[in-house]
This record gives sequence, structure tokens and C-alpha cells, in this order.
Amino acid sequence: MDALYTHSGSTITDATRRPHVVIVGAGFGGLNAAKALKNAPVDVTIIDRNNHHLFQPLLYQVATAVLSPADISAPIRHILHKQKNTKVVLAEVTGIDRERQLVWLDDRSVPYDYLIVATGASHSYFGNDQWAPFAPGLKSITDATALRRKILLAFEEAEQETDPDRQRSLLTFILIGAGPTGVEMAGAIAELAHAALASDFRNIDPKAARIILVEALPRILPAFDEKLAKKAQDGLHQLGVEVRTSSAVQDVNAYGVVIAGQQIEAGTVIWTAGVSASAAGKWLGAEQDRAGRARVDQYLNLPGYSNIFIIGDTSSTTQDGKPIPGIAPAAMQGGIYAASVISDRVTGKLNSQPFRYHSRGNLATVGRSYGIADLGKVKFSGFLAWIFWIVAHVFFLIGFRNRFLVLFQSAWGYVTFQRNARLITHDYSAVASARPRERELQPS
Amino acid sequence: MDALYTHSGSTITDATRRPHVVIVGAGFGGLNAAKALKNAPVDVTIIDRNNHHLFQPLLYQVATAVLSPADISAPIRHILHKQKNTKVVLAEVTGIDRERQLVWLDDRSVPYDYLIVATGASHSYFGNDQWAPFAPGLKSITDATALRRKILLAFEEAEQETDPDRQRSLLTFILIGAGPTGVEMAGAIAELAHAALASDFRNIDPKAARIILVEALPRILPAFDEKLAKKAQDGLHQLGVEVRTSSAVQDVNAYGVVIAGQQIEAGTVIWTAGVSASAAGKWLGAEQDRAGRARVDQYLNLPGYSNIFIIGDTSSTTQDGKPIPGIAPAAMQGGIYAASVISDRVTGKLNSQPFRYHSRGNLATVGRSYGIADLGKVKFSGFLAWIFWIVAHVFFLIGFRNRFLVLFQSAWGYVTFQRNARLITHDYSAVASARPRERELQPS
Repeated sequence: MDALYTHSGSTITDATRRPHVVIVGAGFGGLNAAKALKNAPVDVTIIDRNNHHLFQPLLYQVATAVLSPADISAPIRHILHKQKNTKVVLAEVTGIDRERQLVWLDDRSVPYDYLIVATGASHSYFGNDQWAPFAPGLKSITDATALRRKILLAFEEAEQETDPDRQRSLLTFILIGAGPTGVEMAGAIAELAHAALASDFRNIDPKAARIILVEALPRILPAFDEKLAKKAQDGLHQLGVEVRTSSAVQDVNAYGVVIAGQQIEAGTVIWTAGVSASAAGKWLGAEQDRAGRARVDQYLNLPGYSNIFIIGDTSSTTQDGKPIPGIAPAAMQGGIYAASVISDRVTGKLNSQPFRYHSRGNLATVGRSYGIADLGKVKFSGFLAWIFWIVAHVFFLIGFRNRFLVLFQSAWGYVTFQRNARLITHDYSAVASARPRERELQPS
Repeated sequence: MDALYTHSGSTITDATRRPHVVIVGAGFGGLNAAKALKNAPVDVTIIDRNNHHLFQPLLYQVATAVLSPADISAPIRHILHKQKNTKVVLAEVTGIDRERQLVWLDDRSVPYDYLIVATGASHSYFGNDQWAPFAPGLKSITDATALRRKILLAFEEAEQETDPDRQRSLLTFILIGAGPTGVEMAGAIAELAHAALASDFRNIDPKAARIILVEALPRILPAFDEKLAKKAQDGLHQLGVEVRTSSAVQDVNAYGVVIAGQQIEAGTVIWTAGVSASAAGKWLGAEQDRAGRARVDQYLNLPGYSNIFIIGDTSSTTQDGKPIPGIAPAAMQGGIYAASVISDRVTGKLNSQPFRYHSRGNLATVGRSYGIADLGKVKFSGFLAWIFWIVAHVFFLIGFRNRFLVLFQSAWGYVTFQRNARLITHDYSAVASARPRERELQPS
């Protein structure tokens, strides 16, 4: 700590070299850390394997053909283009040398004085990785467009299918995990089938599609107040979603899902359950929790390394005995905190305030006009909560242009029930063949 | 002809079975044929390998990150969802049996009474298919997003490149073929580099990017009036595009293009030259022209088969000694004509009017505020022509929603110079590795 302080302190007098802050990951945490360092006497390098920041909370709307990928993405370079002390590097990080203070890329290394690790999380199949090919998750644009393709193709294949059992299975969609993503996605698929596609087919009735939301716990939305969760469940029922709580998934295979020893045939299974942290914890040799999150101290530091911060879904820490949730606001607050600690250090101040997460509450939507808002003391549901969700999310979006468009598109979708982005790209036979089937020669 | 007429005539009296019209391809030709058959006493099946109709004239705007794929696509099913006599089939056609009147799909066959073949065209490398991997063309959404990825990655790689020669080559973009697509694409890339990306990088100056438009003929835009083409060329110069006419390409390789024995190093080469018709001509055993287009008679029929129509870019025919151009209006008019002939036949009328193409003139844009319009007698250029182009194209778009969005996005892009869809999806290393390079270990 002292050594480090002297080190970074000394660099202030050294005009030729300012402390170098490297941020790995341009999600909510990393991006907000970079922005908070705008006026600090440091050079910032932010590294991401994608060229765009992704607004993950709306990713399910891409998977259900409401929005286009570009509507919820913004080029990282452009977000930071006015920030002269900041460089954006498009590259994949392969490791970190915490002793030599180097971040390894595939073909070179980047030295750092301060490191902020904000590499997020991916899905976890709780030790059943063999389920992955049958139950894809939703973390990236590529995940979302692949899922969109699979969902839209299920209807296309059902339209051409002659075997009624096979047709029924193609029109069955199972979501595993009833957190906000599972709930919002289930509602969106129900509306896609029951409204947007309703009159587009000749051999099938999309309204007959089954959407099943499976949850191992006795209730949905465990992070929410129980009454609100109940309201959300009623809303799902009204949209025609079957909710099955206290239903642990025993197996996921090419034909569907096994619950309580019974196979439910489904052409599309979507994993909206567990997340596991990125490999950053391993890179840093950090102690990890069950989900692979690196344990950090109350300063969000890797214990023993006060120049290494691990924030957002990549790290795990408790506050007042409760774990800090893996949601965007927590990541953003963590990024801003880490930036302020670094700014204080390099300007000679010593910040000893530990990180405090301030919850802004939980929001979720159920379909196109019903939401629930759990703001701690204030709890409400219905249309007002849905409007609140739209506004809160849309104005979160980085870049006014996208905000405006997304607001317009949501409004348009609300009025018309239509979906803009019903686009099946790439070779559909590849996806089709991922589903087992025999098709006999049939007349048109 | 008689046999056929009796055949289709007889089906009218047979209430249980109406003549079956199969349309292959849902581009401008096929889609307009289907719509024109809305009230005809026939059953229509339209088959396309994509689920969406693509507005190809704006495809270059997807490749240059102005628009998202969904902005220029509309689900075929939804366009036709109110048309009860029409079925949409998502499938790849593998062949046609003109004697047994069957269209073959990969796993079954579809019988037809009347067949409209509208399968469009793809690019032709004039017998140099080995150039294809180095100079991709632009015909599908997948082409466009791949090209967008390659163009955006060229800047990203240049930013990280330390070798100045290599950097210069990464910032060089060569377009081969100065038809409307080449001209519009060159202008769009110039503006992307010189305006949209101008301030986003630290190690490179995107304004230094070279955009070279190569044309073998002595002039650009051969389909346009010479004066207008000259004005377009001046417009390109003002945007910083180098135009090289009378420059035949001798070779395209991993390092760029060879013209007049001289290699021009370029990280990105785009093929905007020749087109070749789809395989439909082969399927039908038709006589084909050099570009693979099936020769049709003045009724757009495959000679000897008055129940088989070949329209749009797939076919070739002359009018008043001049070939009918391979552009959207010609395809649309052909589709509407074929539909009217079929309607007349099945309702007992005999239509003996040959097809007449009515030219609506030619339009092209040069960058974001300059256009040329060649309407035959009336010819004009400049801002007015650009507005004319926007309106003509945008209101062509199927589906008001997309129209509105595209208009909004064009306007927005015009005001801000910004690009919404600067999205690099999928594994970028794959694309990067398509470019030869050595990279040494370098400090950030």
C-alpha cells in the first residue's frame, strides 16, 4: 500500500509519464469507471473484446425480435471519443500477471499501475454443461440473434411439419429460471406467438404455442417482494404463460426438458437461470465463490493488492451481511467508486471510505403493458410500473440517439403489436438440423 | 399452350382444386407477382430461402453502418399475411422438373401449374472466382454485416498497428466497379472515415483513409447520362474518393489489387462489379447469356413453356434492341406482368400483349447530400436529386414502420454525421486473420 502510494505519488511529478489505469471490460462497471476518470491525472486504457458497449437488460428484446442489435449497443470508442486521456483497445484478454503488473492479450501485454477488472459473467449450468447446446443462454448480441433465429425458425418448421406431435413440440418454448430475464423473456415470447405472429401462418396457429417458465424455487422473482412476485405471476398467466415453480430440472436434452421424471417435449429451451463469473478470478488467483466470483475486500480490492479492483458481476462481496446483487446499478456504482479511489491516490489524497452499494430497487416487466417496481419502501405494479420500467431503462441507454429510437420502437411495438426485427440471418438449416426430426416427402 | 390452357381452364370448373402458382424468390419480382395475384382464382405458394424480403438498394447502408439489417428487411409472411390464397414457404430450392411440373426442395417437391422464377443474381468475378475471398460482394444481409465487420475492423487493426506501411494499407479501401453500388458505397465509406469516425481513434487519423474506386470502362455510371456521371465523379472527388477509370483489375490478392502491373496495398477490397444470375437458368435447361441469365421470349416465358415465367435479374431479354436493365423496377414490372397473364389465363381470357418495360429512370447518391437523377428527358443533380433519391427509395420500402424509421435514421445521420450500427458481431479474429500480418509484442 505504502509502496504503491509512493509509486503513484511519484508519477505526478514525472510529467513524461502519468499513472496508467487499465480497465478490462466495457460493460456498465468498466465504462462508468472510465468516464469517472475523465479529469483524473492518469492515462486510461479500456480493453474489451467487443467494439460496443451492450445494454444487457434489453437483450431479451433482441432475442424476441422487438429491437435490433444496434439499438442496444453503442461503439465504446464513440462513447469515450471526447475523453482525451482514454484509449480504447479491441482485444481479448488472456491473462493477468499481478506481480509484473501486466495484462496479457493474445499477442502482446499491457502494463498497468492500476487495474480495474470488470469482465462480467456468463451463464452457469450448475455443473451440467452438457445441457448448453440444448438450452442456450442470453449474454451477448450473438446469443440474442442466435436465439431469435431459433425461436422464429421453430414457427417456420412447425408450419412445414406434418406430424402433429412434432408440430406441438416445435410450438413449445421452455424457459429455465424465473428471475427477471426469464419472466420478461417468457412474456415477450408469449406476445410474439399470441399477437405478432398470430395471422402470419397457414398450417399452424401460433396462438396455440405453449410457453412454460420453470423455476426450482417455490416462487418466481426471488429478489422481489413476495406480493409483487405474485402479481407478476398472475400477469404471466394472463399472457398464457404456464409457470411451474418448485420444479427442479433433472435433464435437458435434444427433445426438451425432464421435470419430476417426466419429459416435456419442446423445440426451444432457453437457459435463464444461473450465471457464473468470467475467468478473471482465475487470472488473478483470487479466492472464488461457488459462482466463480472473486472475493474482494470492502474497497473492492483483490485482498493484498490495493491497485487491483474487481467490480460488478466478476466479484462478490457482502454488505451488512447481504451479498451485493449482480445487477447493472451495483456494477456502475462499483466502477465509479474504484475510479474515485484511484483519483484520490494519484492526487495524494488517501481515500479510506469502503464501498457502499445504494440499492435503487428492482424493476421487471411482464409483457407489453404490465410491470412491477420494488423500490424498497415504495412498491407498485401495473401499467404505471411498466412505464416506470421503460423510462428507467431507456434513459439509462448511452447515447441519446439510441434512447430516442428505442423509445420510439417500444412505443410503436406497443401500438401495433408488431416486431421490427423478425430477421433470420445465416444458414437456417444449421439451426434446423440442431433439432432432431424426420421429414417425409410431402405435397405442398 | 393449348394443352396448358385447357388444363388451367379445366381447373376453374373444378372447385376442389384451383390452379397452383408457385413463385420462387421473394425479391422485388416475386413479391410483386404474389401481391398481384391476390384476387386471382389461384392458390399461390411463394418459396424463399430467407424469411425476409430484402430492400437491396439500401444494402450498402447496412455495410457502412448507417442502417441495421432489420431496417431494410420485412418478414415475407407478414407482408402477405392478409392474402389468404398465398402460402409462404421458407426453404431452399434445389431444382425444377419442367416436364413433371415440380419444384424440388431439399427434402420434398412442390407441384405447380404455373411457375414464376425470380431468384435474382449474385456477383460474378468474370471467371476469376479465386478473387472472391479477397473481394467480397454485396447481395445479402450476411454479405452486408460481414463487410461492415471487415470495414470497422480495418480501423481497429490500424489503431493497434505499429508498422506504418501496414497501417496505411489497413486504411486503404478499394471498390472494384463504378456502377451505382460502387459509387454509393465509396461515398459512404469516405464519409464513415472522414466524418463519423474522425475523432474516435488515438493512434490513427481516419481522415487519412484512402478510398479508391476502380472502373475498367473509361467512365463511371455507364447507365447514366455522361454529364451526370461527370458530376457524380466531381462529387466523389470532393468526398476524397480517388476515381480510377479505364483501369482494368489484373489481380486481386490478400494484399490488395493489381492494376496496370502495379500492386495497390489495401486491407479491404470490395467487389461492386459484375453480377451473374442464379442457378435457375441451369435448373430449367434454358439458353443462358454470358451472365448466366436465362433467355426468355417477349412474354417472359421460357421458350416452349407458356406456364413458366422467368423475371428480374434471373432472365435476359431485349426491348427495342436494348437489354432490359437488371434493376428493381424492371423486376417489379415483370412480376406484375406475369401475374396478369396468369390471371387472364385461369379466368379464360387470353392475354397476347407482350411485356413492355417502362423505365422510370436512374438515380444514384454521392455521399450524404448529393445525388444525380436521370429521368430520360429530365436530368438533374445536387441536393434536390439526393432528396428525390431518399424519397423514391424510402417510400419504396415495404411496411410503413420501416419507412418511417429509415427516414428518421437517414435524417438523423444527416444531421449528426453519426452511424447507428457500428457493430462488430461474431468472432473478429476470424476476419482479422483473413488479412496477412505479423504483429510483434508491443507496449500499449
